[in-house]
Amino acid sequence: MKLLSTLACGALLSFPAVAMATDLAPLDVPAKALPAPTADISPGMQAFVDAPLNPSWNKLWKTGEEARAFADNQAADTVKTIPALLARQHVKSEASTIDGVRVHILTPDDIPQENKDKVLIHVHGGCYVLFPGESGTPEGIIMAGDGHYKVISVDYRMPPEAYFPAAVDDAVTVYKAVLKDTPAKNIGVFGTSAGGALTLELVLRAREQGLPAPGALGSGTPMSDATKTGDSFYTNEKVDNILVSRDGFCDAATVIYAHGHDLKDPLISPVYGDMHGFPPTILTTGTRDLLLSNTVRVHRKLRRAGIEATLQVYEGESHAQYEFDDTLPESKEAFGEIASFFGAHLGK
Amino acid sequence: MKLLSTLACGALLSFPAVAMATDLAPLDVPAKALPAPTADISPGMQAFVDAPLNPSWNKLWKTGEEARAFADNQAADTVKTIPALLARQHVKSEASTIDGVRVHILTPDDIPQENKDKVLIHVHGGCYVLFPGESGTPEGIIMAGDGHYKVISVDYRMPPEAYFPAAVDDAVTVYKAVLKDTPAKNIGVFGTSAGGALTLELVLRAREQGLPAPGALGSGTPMSDATKTGDSFYTNEKVDNILVSRDGFCDAATVIYAHGHDLKDPLISPVYGDMHGFPPTILTTGTRDLLLSNTVRVHRKLRRAGIEATLQVYEGESHAQYEFDDTLPESKEAFGEIASFFGAHLGK
Repeated sequence: MKLLSTLACGALLSFPAVAMATDLAPLDVPAKALPAPTADISPGMQAFVDAPLNPSWNKLWKTGEEARAFADNQAADTVKTIPALLARQHVKSEASTIDGVRVHILTPDDIPQENKDKVLIHVHGGCYVLFPGESGTPEGIIMAGDGHYKVISVDYRMPPEAYFPAAVDDAVTVYKAVLKDTPAKNIGVFGTSAGGALTLELVLRAREQGLPAPGALGSGTPMSDATKTGDSFYTNEKVDNILVSRDGFCDAATVIYAHGHDLKDPLISPVYGDMHGFPPTILTTGTRDLLLSNTVRVHRKLRRAGIEATLQVYEGESHAQYEFDDTLPESKEAFGEIASFFGAHLGK
Repeated sequence: MKLLSTLACGALLSFPAVAMATDLAPLDVPAKALPAPTADISPGMQAFVDAPLNPSWNKLWKTGEEARAFADNQAADTVKTIPALLARQHVKSEASTIDGVRVHILTPDDIPQENKDKVLIHVHGGCYVLFPGESGTPEGIIMAGDGHYKVISVDYRMPPEAYFPAAVDDAVTVYKAVLKDTPAKNIGVFGTSAGGALTLELVLRAREQGLPAPGALGSGTPMSDATKTGDSFYTNEKVDNILVSRDGFCDAATVIYAHGHDLKDPLISPVYGDMHGFPPTILTTGTRDLLLSNTVRVHRKLRRAGIEATLQVYEGESHAQYEFDDTLPESKEAFGEIASFFGAHLGK
């Protein structure tokens, strides 16, 4: 039984019967039938949010090879959707390499004058094991199209080809190459999920190498804590229909990538990094996101370090759903916010 | 049974087995034992967050008299804590009236030069029925002390003394009086819960009366939707240990205040108001807040209207817990963010 210590803390009392716990027993939350969100949400997003739990949520791959087999299958499906996406977004995609790192150069038909000297680097998500090759580019294409920026999408090495710190190192290699022609303040970096974490990790790794920080960051629902710490790992368990659980596929995949390395290393769990000197950062998440806490923890950490950081939380959305369909108003809104943020901060 | 429409939507696919719901059947969320949050939270805040459900959560008062009896009892306890709070915050409190409206003038010992021509108007929370008289002033005292602003805390009429729209009208009366000596751009308005809603309602009501908007707003976890719409009313049901449920005391009390008036009126549910032309606004909430959705919905609505609006979401916190104890670092952080926001926007 949990004891109350009502009025015993000598603190300001602002609500009926304010109590403080005297032990840290768990709070029992009963089962619930969660209706679809109905307010301020488009029918398309409502259908994503209300879908049954991702049937792959508890695929616990044990090796890079297992994860890669799944990733390749999924990639084949994703790649089929890309020509239509490129056409809708009026973006051209070109596979290339930069200092040995595979990339896709994503160029919108229309780049306004003020963006011509700017470059965005995109680091895709997928738990460090999913979305190889062209299948990693859709978020970059949307940003190129909606934001009217040239985007370089990094097809970083993933297990079993390579393990930690290959992903962040490949991103830094591209960043370093871009720095030869573009001042740091004109470079934005963005990504979602593992890509949101890699966005932050790139800054930490670049600093280790004596490189300047980029001009601005867009970190979408970052996997900022691979130790699976954070309150929404519990509050949004089986509420988020994409990641579903801290004991699901995504954290298992991250362990494969870490390959025995300490999961609390800021290059895998950037919430533990020193964020003083970080560039202005926009963070994006949803109220049902399993990584809501990992997003707001990064936001708070940046703010405590005195960094200009802005947080966008979308009603009802589970993990990363703002990037599932570029035709939805919620997608245009999220990418519009990020593009505006880059517009306000790059080059300054 | 819920049917899947996997890959059938022609949309961008960014995660394993992305599905869209073809009906809107509820999602079944199993019961859970929710551990206390452990990361980036002080022991004091952890104890608030992990406390058992507010034992008064399901007091469903039916009349203003019933609510007032509870409020008076609670107020007596709260008022006992105020002398120590005033001493800690180095603030002087003086009861007064402004054009017939009861107020407390809260004056910090130290007002820096740049704040001497600024005034903050505080509208307290408490579901439109709680915290009468001096018991409504603690949040105002914290802001006066932490923010070093002169604060006028409005002791607006509540049931059974008066009903809708008495609260917002009293706030507007004070605002109008302050406008005689202080330009609108130098006036900030803030409050939490019903006070967060009243902050927004004041702007709508002032506009109806041809008054200019204030210079900036601090709307804390606003009761922005008295129709009890919003996803976190469900996702955070019995997770938030203060409000606990949409079927709890606070929404019942709001019905008493509304007194038969349409709950969707923007002067009770400001999320339905036209927010074009609103001043810069800072919103504050927590990941466990029952009103997380009502806070982010206001944020999105402001952003869609092109308003500078910033959102602060604190790890693990239930409804309004950032104002429960002014000595906690989370309280200093939340009020510090709001004060900085006023500093950046008032007078501009």
